[in-house]
Amino acid sequence: MSRHPARGSVNFIMITRSTIAAAAFRISPYVRHTPVMTIAGSDLGLRDPVVLKLELLQHAGSFKPRGAFNRLLTADWPEAGVIAASGGNHGAAVAYAARALGMTAEIFVPALTPPTKVARIASYGARVVQGGETYAEALAASRLRLAETGALEVHAYDHPAVLAGQGTVGREFEADAPDLTHILVATGGGGLIGGIAAWYAGSVQVFSVEPEGCPGLHDALRAGQPVDAPVGGLAADSLGARQVGGLMFPIARAYVSSAVLVADSAIAAAQRWLWDRCRLIAEPGGATALAALLSGRFVPPDGARVGVLVCGANTDPAKVAAA
Amino acid sequence: MSRHPARGSVNFIMITRSTIAAAAFRISPYVRHTPVMTIAGSDLGLRDPVVLKLELLQHAGSFKPRGAFNRLLTADWPEAGVIAASGGNHGAAVAYAARALGMTAEIFVPALTPPTKVARIASYGARVVQGGETYAEALAASRLRLAETGALEVHAYDHPAVLAGQGTVGREFEADAPDLTHILVATGGGGLIGGIAAWYAGSVQVFSVEPEGCPGLHDALRAGQPVDAPVGGLAADSLGARQVGGLMFPIARAYVSSAVLVADSAIAAAQRWLWDRCRLIAEPGGATALAALLSGRFVPPDGARVGVLVCGANTDPAKVAAA
Repeated sequence: MSRHPARGSVNFIMITRSTIAAAAFRISPYVRHTPVMTIAGSDLGLRDPVVLKLELLQHAGSFKPRGAFNRLLTADWPEAGVIAASGGNHGAAVAYAARALGMTAEIFVPALTPPTKVARIASYGARVVQGGETYAEALAASRLRLAETGALEVHAYDHPAVLAGQGTVGREFEADAPDLTHILVATGGGGLIGGIAAWYAGSVQVFSVEPEGCPGLHDALRAGQPVDAPVGGLAADSLGARQVGGLMFPIARAYVSSAVLVADSAIAAAQRWLWDRCRLIAEPGGATALAALLSGRFVPPDGARVGVLVCGANTDPAKVAAA
Repeated sequence: MSRHPARGSVNFIMITRSTIAAAAFRISPYVRHTPVMTIAGSDLGLRDPVVLKLELLQHAGSFKPRGAFNRLLTADWPEAGVIAASGGNHGAAVAYAARALGMTAEIFVPALTPPTKVARIASYGARVVQGGETYAEALAASRLRLAETGALEVHAYDHPAVLAGQGTVGREFEADAPDLTHILVATGGGGLIGGIAAWYAGSVQVFSVEPEGCPGLHDALRAGQPVDAPVGGLAADSLGARQVGGLMFPIARAYVSSAVLVADSAIAAAQRWLWDRCRLIAEPGGATALAALLSGRFVPPDGARVGVLVCGANTDPAKVAAA
């Protein structure tokens, strides 16, 4: 445990395998069991094959509906509906989930959220409010509105139900690729890696991959607590939380082996690789974990069985294919 | 059996489950086992879930490397290398396979082959010769060149090794979705559906889906033999064989339940659905089988467990996302 517990963090791990198994059962009518695909090592310049989990094929184009549905299905539903702040993917997921469950939704996004994501959120019938520079500012705006309306807040990562929902990705990955030794996961606010690391609980080495421009967990692990980190670069709209969540941090301390940083150029190269070699369109944040492998920032030991999460696709495909 | 056996056809089925199992073993180091994904019926306006096989994630962007590798791995390799005629996907696959095995390749494509496919073929180091209006004319040109060089011909569909290779799609589909009752497959020259129907051999109802502009198997089944059919419309570059293969025809007569035609507008709608709902970029031919389901041209009986092959992705993603 840290000698300097972070503001708002808790000192124990409240997400367990049984929490996550219950979440998986609860959300199963609403989310896709996304597939895995084994890639030959030679395709990646590696000796051993790698398993991709294609979570970018999830509803609303990212893993986020898992946490959103688990949050909504474990809460009371106020008349005022739901409210969320998001770089885009979480907002799309909350809007999707709210519509599926018959609730209204208001989504706050910052200026850096790309038009494709704003359009996607609106397409699910939610009210979109765009303002502020980063996710943190959109969150602050959403909290003012929350105080006015009494809606249900669906936090993008720092809520136990959201963490448990995202952890169902790990449960599926283990079921479909039971021999993995290492897993690479992109980190923003840390809901996804927190949930996955809680699922594996040390039985597999989980690595965080972050853009050099958004080193939230990297900096937090070094500081011993969540700290403000820069928010910038290619993947800022999906990985640009200013701080990782207080709930995920003890999980990361216990079960995340290391945090690897990658350059934006490596992220763009991974996006191109996914289209060129696999015919998959991933957004920058969705290709970030793979970028660590392709760029050599993460070098698997001989015989490792590496799993990589490809976690989001909400981008303009023309940009990926033309890059 | 037909009372009027077609020119060049054979009157017996030479592709069996053991032929296909052997092909699967032979090509396994070179091709991907592509994933399946279950889609909720509600996503499709149907009562029951549907299983998509994501063969568009195969090397070179379509199922075609299966047949190409099986052909090359069962032939002698002349000094002059390999030669193939193609609307594009088969050419890309032959170029890919030839490079993987250290052979040279010449690929003949017609004028209707889109620039993305020509570039893809060339990217694998093959010599591309573009000319003639349709696949049939490119085939004729390739045969003149074949006579000059003595290269190995890799036919796009009408060869036992190619049929057996494509049949490995059916073998994987059955392994990963053993409870299917109906399978929808797009048909051009018929190599894919011929191989798949030979694998299932009547244990599942296999339906051919063809664009109204390229009704090759539809017309052949009505005529009782392969006949010249129109070649036109959105998917002509991948499904525009003038005639289905003589080798596949007896398989289709025995094991294909029916041939369904779909409009180009339904194909385009299926492409948009795949991007909007699943974040998959499919080319027109790759979305054709799904179009039958989405347009209501194929209505599954209650309780049917339908499988749909999504078989190619070689297109400009900007066109799909903007459509």
